[in-house]
Parts: sequence; C-alpha cells; structure tokens
Amino acid sequence: MRKGDVIVLEHLPAAVAYAAGGGRRELDGPLGSAFDIAERDTRFGQKTWEMAESELARRTLETAFGKVPHDIGTPDVVFAGDLQCQCTASGYAMRSEDVPFAGLYGACSTMAESAALAACLVDGGFAACAAAMASSHFCAAERQFRTPLGYGAKRTPTAQWTVTGAGAVVLASGRGPRVRAVQFGRVRDLGVFDASNMGAAMAPAAAETLVRYFDATGETPDAFDAVYTGDLGAVGSNLLGSLLELEGVRLQNHRDCGLEIYGRTAPGSGASGAGCSAAVLCGHILPMLARGEMRRVLFLATGALMSQTTSLQGESIPGVAHLVEFCSEEAMACS
Amino acid sequence: MRKGDVIVLEHLPAAVAYAAGGGRRELDGPLGSAFDIAERDTRFGQKTWEMAESELARRTLETAFGKVPHDIGTPDVVFAGDLQCQCTASGYAMRSEDVPFAGLYGACSTMAESAALAACLVDGGFAACAAAMASSHFCAAERQFRTPLGYGAKRTPTAQWTVTGAGAVVLASGRGPRVRAVQFGRVRDLGVFDASNMGAAMAPAAAETLVRYFDATGETPDAFDAVYTGDLGAVGSNLLGSLLELEGVRLQNHRDCGLEIYGRTAPGSGASGAGCSAAVLCGHILPMLARGEMRRVLFLATGALMSQTTSLQGESIPGVAHLVEFCSEEAMACS
Repeated sequence: MRKGDVIVLEHLPAAVAYAAGGGRRELDGPLGSAFDIAERDTRFGQKTWEMAESELARRTLETAFGKVPHDIGTPDVVFAGDLQCQCTASGYAMRSEDVPFAGLYGACSTMAESAALAACLVDGGFAACAAAMASSHFCAAERQFRTPLGYGAKRTPTAQWTVTGAGAVVLASGRGPRVRAVQFGRVRDLGVFDASNMGAAMAPAAAETLVRYFDATGETPDAFDAVYTGDLGAVGSNLLGSLLELEGVRLQNHRDCGLEIYGRTAPGSGASGAGCSAAVLCGHILPMLARGEMRRVLFLATGALMSQTTSLQGESIPGVAHLVEFCSEEAMACS
Repeated sequence: MRKGDVIVLEHLPAAVAYAAGGGRRELDGPLGSAFDIAERDTRFGQKTWEMAESELARRTLETAFGKVPHDIGTPDVVFAGDLQCQCTASGYAMRSEDVPFAGLYGACSTMAESAALAACLVDGGFAACAAAMASSHFCAAERQFRTPLGYGAKRTPTAQWTVTGAGAVVLASGRGPRVRAVQFGRVRDLGVFDASNMGAAMAPAAAETLVRYFDATGETPDAFDAVYTGDLGAVGSNLLGSLLELEGVRLQNHRDCGLEIYGRTAPGSGASGAGCSAAVLCGHILPMLARGEMRRVLFLATGALMSQTTSLQGESIPGVAHLVEFCSEEAMACS
C-alpha cells in the first residue's frame, strides 16, 4: 500500500541474517565489537585498495549468507552497490557468488536503497529471499572523489572520513527484525559545491524524505526509539535539525551513523561512505532490534550524487535520501 | 511467481509511454526515425559531454512523461542509470524531476535492469506507475573507460562505438506492450581482459541468462519474434551463438541492438553503451510491439562491469545480462 511516497509493506519481511565488516579504524571505534569481519589488514590480502574493498564486500556477504537459517535457502537476488567508479567493488565481489545480481548506485544512500528493493521483492513474492549490501573503503574512495592518499592532501574541518566497511542483510519470511515500510527519496540540490562538505549537500534530501514520511504516515518522531541518518556527520546533522525545525518537526531521538561509528575519535565532521550506514545497520541497529533493545527505528541513508568529474567541472552536489522503517518482532506483534 | 531465476509477473504491467533520444550519428543510422529527441548538437546545449548526456537523459525522460495518459498520473519512482562514474548523468537529470529516484549501475545492462525493477514494483502494487531509463554518450564514455577523444587513440576492430542515446519507458496498468517476465542475471567472468572487446566479455553472461530462461520456462527460441541482446556487437553475437550451440540452443531469431542501431555504417564491431539498448527498446522494439508487428520479444541487455581503474590494474572483465520478456496486447489476450 502506498501512502504518498511511502510504500507500506504487507508481509513485513524479516532480516533473517546480517553481517558487518570493517577495517582497523572501525574496529578501534566504539562499535568495534559490532563487526563480524575483524580484519586489521586494510588491504584484506589484496594488491589494490579497490580489490581490498571488493574482498571485504565478498566476505561480509558470505558471512551473512552463512547465517541464513537452512530452511530458507540461497537468496534469489542480491542488490548491492558501492562508491567506486562503475561500482566495481560490488560487481567484482559478485563474481564468486552464483546468485542473480542487480547493481545499484546511490552513493552513501545505497544501503537503504538496496534494503528497500530487497524488501519490496520479498514482500511482493518476486523473491523468496533477497540480500542487500553496500560497502566503501577509505583509501579507494579518497582517490575516487578527491586525491590519492599519497598526495597527502589536507582535510578541511567539514570533511568526513570514508568508512572502510560493509554491511549485508538477508530478507525473507522468517524470524528477525521486520521491514514495515520503505521510501525512495527525491533528488535535492541546494547549491553546495564543496566536495569536502557532503553533510551540507545531503541534509536537504534527508529533511525532505523525513518530512514526506511523517506527513504521509501521520507518525511523529517520538514513535521511534531512534531516527538514524546515514552519514550526515556533525555539520549535516546540525543542518538537518535546522531544516526540520523550519518544517515544524523536532527530532529528539536523532542519531547519525557517521557520528556513531568512530564516536569521539571521529576525524573532521565524522564518518561517511556507503559502508558506514551499512555496517552500523547490520552490526549495530539490527542486532539491537533483534535483542528487543529498540522497538521501532527509521533508517535513512543519505547520498551525495556527484563525481570527481562533476566537481572539477564546477557542478553543485545533488543529494538523495532513501528510508527504511524497521521494527522488532515484538513491536510488529503489537501493531 | 518464480520459475528458477525467472520472475513471472501476475498483472503484466503495460508500457504506457516510452521515448528515445539520440545524437547525430544515431539519427543518421537506419533507426533514425525512431528517435523522439532529434538533436544534431552532440553537446545538447551544454558545456561538457557529461552534462550533455544528462540533458539528453532529462529530455528523453520528460518526453516519455509527456506521453503518459492523463488518467495515470506522475510516476511514483524512476529507476535509471548510465555509464559515467558515480552515474552522474542520471543523478543530475533527476535534479529537475520532482519524483522519487533509485539509481542503478548495470553498465550496458541498465535498461533491462531498470525495466525489470519498474515492472516488479508496478506488478506488486508498490508503485501505480514507475519509469525506467538508461543513457550513454560517446564522448563521455570514451574518457570514462578508455582515453579522452582529444588523444586521438586508434580503435581496434573488436571495439564498439558507445551510442549517444537514451531511452525511457513508463510502466503502469493501462494500454501498451506488456511485461510478462523479468530475470536478473548472474555475474560471469571468463577471463577477458581487453576493454576494447566487451562483446566477448559479455557473451558468456548473455548465454547463461538465456539458457536459464529457456530451462526454467520450457519456452523455445522460436516462440519469439526476436531475441534482442543489448550490445554484443558482431564479435559478441558470434560468441553468443557458439556458446548457446554448446548448450543445445539455436537462436534463429537473434538480433543485437548494437548491430541494429548503426546498421552497415557501424564502426568496428558495432555499437554499445547503456543508451544503445535503451534507445532501441524505446524507439524501435516497443513501437513494433504496439503496432502488432511483433508479438513476443525477449529483451536481454548485457553489461561489462569493469572500470578504467580495474582495467589499468589488470583485472579481467565480469559481465552480467538481465532479461525482460515483452509481448503485444494481442499476444497477451491469446495466452
């Protein structure tokens, strides 16, 4: 059923398995214990940063697959994406998986986009079981979007640190936290030109998606234990608060994956990257929902849709934010 | 209903509107009259090749939107992708459309991927109306994947010419050619390393998807007026024939969008690009189905999932092929 932009699901697919992978900096952060893949070699045994990310994605996906209850079987489709040009981290990871694959590009919004599509396909009976994944790697992303690390470029205070991480979730009919609703975001561009301030570029899209969600559903922010944004960081989170206030929405229980993953050790404005919200979702949020420590959560991953080329060409940065509403099994039973 | 990897749709969403856009070379080809956007300025009024593609995509999408019958209304979601790094042609095109947007990366397989997802969302009632789009631009693609045009690099005989083109289709309940089934492909990599021979890199994925389709459905190739592949070109089409022969499948009615779009004027091995199969689908195949000149068609778009970075790093090229089965309204009535 649709309510405005919100797709309310009928069968509430369950997150029957999930896994998170991270690199050294992520393991040393406050969510360190959340990671299934705890590898201190940032190259993950590979020759290049790009293949390192691909290997991390592959291992994370296989770890999630390994947790799927036996009666559910192999996923019918995997939705995945990453930040590399031509999404090669995901494409190359899928070489070793004999499973249908649909590649996505949503920048740092990918985890919500992939989970939303997987949820729709399972809910509609198009797949008995579908997986969603997103990944990023600091060293690969720096040279994709800014400069190779070897250049030693200075970082500005608004810059965010791309997470070396991945998250994968498998949705099916079964036990686990449920997906109640999903919402695809609209592209918003308020004229931010600074590729080192992506929080500012993405905040308008996040505000737009949230306002539309609350308007369409009649829900209020206090119905949720937490409203997680993907990776707005400190700058973007402040802007989101201001933008929502203009719309009369007060978000008391806002958390940002980009501020949670490194905690006080965060460089600059916090963390970012498609793997940031993916790892926090699969390593932290879903386990809390499974343990009943939270009952209802909005998960809103935000993406900045520029490239190095468009930045060099002087274009502004469009943003998008997709939303997935999760609830615990207990909360589903009461609703 | 699933049959193997094939998702058989229940309500058979209709292609209620579609449009194709092309550049000068495309207009001069044998399908020249198929294009709704007939612009001879390859820059489409923009300063850069990247923004030229974005403008072409935007105009093509808006032309398709303009053809949607009034009782159907605005699409609830647009699925779109392109070949540019970080899919900026689509992302920037969507800045001016106030419609939810889910970005895809499937390389040249994007049109089948986007149409498949749009079809599932409409069939499942998650969207009353959904659009699918893909685009490419020769000049933008050359510098993304090989070298900037100004370098004057020589082309090999196996190289394909990236189409400057776009196609957009709007699916909904209504009148028009129907989507009967969709199938997401599996990634296949048989160790082709030559980025100037993408037909060879993609043929194994195309063969795999087709064999799985025929096995799962019990259909035979002669049940179709045509089996269209996206852009295998001459080299890839020959390889597809050989690979299918090994599996006991004879494809008498195979056509390749990469050979149709330029006809005898094709440079090298034929055409390629996400916009190739998109423009041929929306400007040629769907109109033929609508006029009853064909009754059943398999549309199989093929993608090579490498990047310039992975090519320079010495990686082989993974391929993927997604499938969409279309039929005319008359064929649907008889089935």
